[in-house]
Amino acid sequence: MHILVLGAAGMVGRKLIERLARDGHLGSREITRMTLQDVVAPAAPAKAAFPADAVTCDFAVPGVAEKLIAGRPEVIFHLAAIVSGEAELDFDKGYRINLDGTRMLFDAVRLAGDAYKPRLVFTSSIAVFGAPYPAAIGDEFFSTPLSSYGTQKAIGELLLADYSRRGFMDAIGIRLPTICVRPGLPNKAASGFFSGILREPLAGEAAILPVEEDVRHWHASPRSAVGFLVHAATIDTQAVGPRRNLTMPGLSATVGEQIAALKRVAGEKVASRIRREPDPFIKGIVAGWPRNFEARRALELGFTTAEKTFDDIIRIHIDDELGGKFVA
Amino acid sequence: MHILVLGAAGMVGRKLIERLARDGHLGSREITRMTLQDVVAPAAPAKAAFPADAVTCDFAVPGVAEKLIAGRPEVIFHLAAIVSGEAELDFDKGYRINLDGTRMLFDAVRLAGDAYKPRLVFTSSIAVFGAPYPAAIGDEFFSTPLSSYGTQKAIGELLLADYSRRGFMDAIGIRLPTICVRPGLPNKAASGFFSGILREPLAGEAAILPVEEDVRHWHASPRSAVGFLVHAATIDTQAVGPRRNLTMPGLSATVGEQIAALKRVAGEKVASRIRREPDPFIKGIVAGWPRNFEARRALELGFTTAEKTFDDIIRIHIDDELGGKFVA
Repeated sequence: MHILVLGAAGMVGRKLIERLARDGHLGSREITRMTLQDVVAPAAPAKAAFPADAVTCDFAVPGVAEKLIAGRPEVIFHLAAIVSGEAELDFDKGYRINLDGTRMLFDAVRLAGDAYKPRLVFTSSIAVFGAPYPAAIGDEFFSTPLSSYGTQKAIGELLLADYSRRGFMDAIGIRLPTICVRPGLPNKAASGFFSGILREPLAGEAAILPVEEDVRHWHASPRSAVGFLVHAATIDTQAVGPRRNLTMPGLSATVGEQIAALKRVAGEKVASRIRREPDPFIKGIVAGWPRNFEARRALELGFTTAEKTFDDIIRIHIDDELGGKFVA
Repeated sequence: MHILVLGAAGMVGRKLIERLARDGHLGSREITRMTLQDVVAPAAPAKAAFPADAVTCDFAVPGVAEKLIAGRPEVIFHLAAIVSGEAELDFDKGYRINLDGTRMLFDAVRLAGDAYKPRLVFTSSIAVFGAPYPAAIGDEFFSTPLSSYGTQKAIGELLLADYSRRGFMDAIGIRLPTICVRPGLPNKAASGFFSGILREPLAGEAAILPVEEDVRHWHASPRSAVGFLVHAATIDTQAVGPRRNLTMPGLSATVGEQIAALKRVAGEKVASRIRREPDPFIKGIVAGWPRNFEARRALELGFTTAEKTFDDIIRIHIDDELGGKFVA
């Protein structure tokens, strides 16, 4: 089986590729080749039993998608996107990559000929929703995004469903929760603190909490996110039917519950490295974000999280990113 | 006030233009000029107090939208579309007109400069919804269209909301019910019989009913549709907020209720001109259509129908299209 990953250098892409290299197969089929695309050079997986070709390019340039699918990959993971903040600052860039690029990819598949019909997995986002929300957002709640990024993802979902309905591809869109604990350096995303208040203290560093402890949000570990992608690539789409965009399961937790979990798993001293510095700007942004979901369909379709509690989310970070150790 | 109508030669467009010519104003402002676009030559309104320029062109050709808005119309009615059946048969044409054309129009407005920010009214459709449905579809029900036309309309809605949120335009999307009684000749649309079983018998002609009498659907008169457009063009959008796409009110009626109304208004003999010829193909298509809505937000925002009962819908047709007389 040949697998194409768009956005292979991103955090989720790298973790997916590591997992696939480790497994050697996707579902019941052996992986024989991977093509890894990103706008910065994607790293080939260490110790993979199959060849991996890295392609450094902008996938949203006309003609590029056709080349990327020239080897007729049976599975395409489309993870490439301009993130929320940048898509809001740069209107043209966001629409060019997130909408036009996605449509060019879908059209390249549609027009490939030779009965080509790959499984395609598209990472959508809970940003397709916009406040005000019910206490828990159900599977039939409407998409009224309050960002250009969320708009572009919602349009990608609609195209994906129509192209699948017409038989051009066999695609699934998955709305990932906010990934927590996100590894790597702190970034300037408004959501960065949800991971930062756990990651930095566990590394012996101070972290800033810009919101109140009663702020509630929707989380899943990187390990869960990769599990969702793999399941979406192998699921029986007959059981999914025409409603092909699914909110993924996650954990709804307040910041206070996150901190309590950190104390239980790593101790009071670690948690004391969190500094409270309320930031009205970030508070304002976060106030419009979803807090809780009822992801019934995804659960019924076999999507499962790797964690049952927020303590698990922290332990997964310590195991997967810190070699089992943290700075006490 | 200068008004631009895209799709001016269509049934709804013609009725809107007649109404505006009759009124001479839109809201509190005098109409000083109209620009009427369609792919077939639009007729100038009879007895209008203002000049009307007819432009016969394909609005989805690059550069055309810029010319159409060159006179900076304060209000744009965007009614132009490839209809459902044709968009399903011709994938490329549907996407080119309904998606690319709409986006080109929105981008022409966005990039016009000189602080141009028109009111734009976009006719969406209940085809943005896909079965299965609740007993009545509420304002927060999700869009999972089962046609390319519905997909294209749903994408237009998302773009409209994002472009409005960003301040490029001040737009409202309205999801029209099926228009009944649709004047003119019978057409081959699967929905044609909803009007045909009333229109043809009232004209002394036979009509074919291809479905069972328990089929329920969502209707509004042409007069109501024009009223919705005018209200959307004049409504205070501050009160609407960021959720700018609205399901319009209508009447939910079964075919049996339609026929009973016809008997009450026009008599048994007229109703006897309906011939029952069940058509499994049309029954299959209609089975996936919405049957009933709860259009609470639109009602709260002052959108009202011209009819209270299906009898009214038939009387409006007799008054507006038949000069008050029918073939008894």
